[in-house]
Amino acid sequence: MKVVVNVSLKEGVLDPQGKAVHHALGSLGFNEVKDVRIGKRIVLDIDGENKEEIKSRVKDMCEELLANTVIEDYFIEVE
Amino acid sequence: MKVVVNVSLKEGVLDPQGKAVHHALGSLGFNEVKDVRIGKRIVLDIDGENKEEIKSRVKDMCEELLANTVIEDYFIEVE
Repeated sequence: MKVVVNVSLKEGVLDPQGKAVHHALGSLGFNEVKDVRIGKRIVLDIDGENKEEIKSRVKDMCEELLANTVIEDYFIEVE
Repeated sequence: MKVVVNVSLKEGVLDPQGKAVHHALGSLGFNEVKDVRIGKRIVLDIDGENKEEIKSRVKDMCEELLANTVIEDYFIEVE
């Protein structure tokens, strides 16, 4: 089963990578862009059929490894 | 308007970051994970109302800056 974990910086946490991309887009003439935030999109291929059980296991993975919950939020999509 | 650009490595392109995370998950006992691929999730805040026009501009941003189309695929979600 395919599971997608989206990890992004919490609101208020500085995002230098996003800022650099924002600036570069401005230099290229894309002046309609007001803000850029960059996060991770982690795609997991997981053995199993039970969606609820898989989601709960992936939540454990996020808490233990995939996200730094001090500065990052995550949300899980089971497909 | 909020636009999300998902950038991921093309199939067949090695993903060492994903491989490292896969290995780390295995060490933590998450042996049901069969594969991990890691991409970027870029969230843009854009001035404008016309969805089609915005999507076309974001496509240009991807081709020019956000994605390396030699090794990466992208898809755009306008919300």
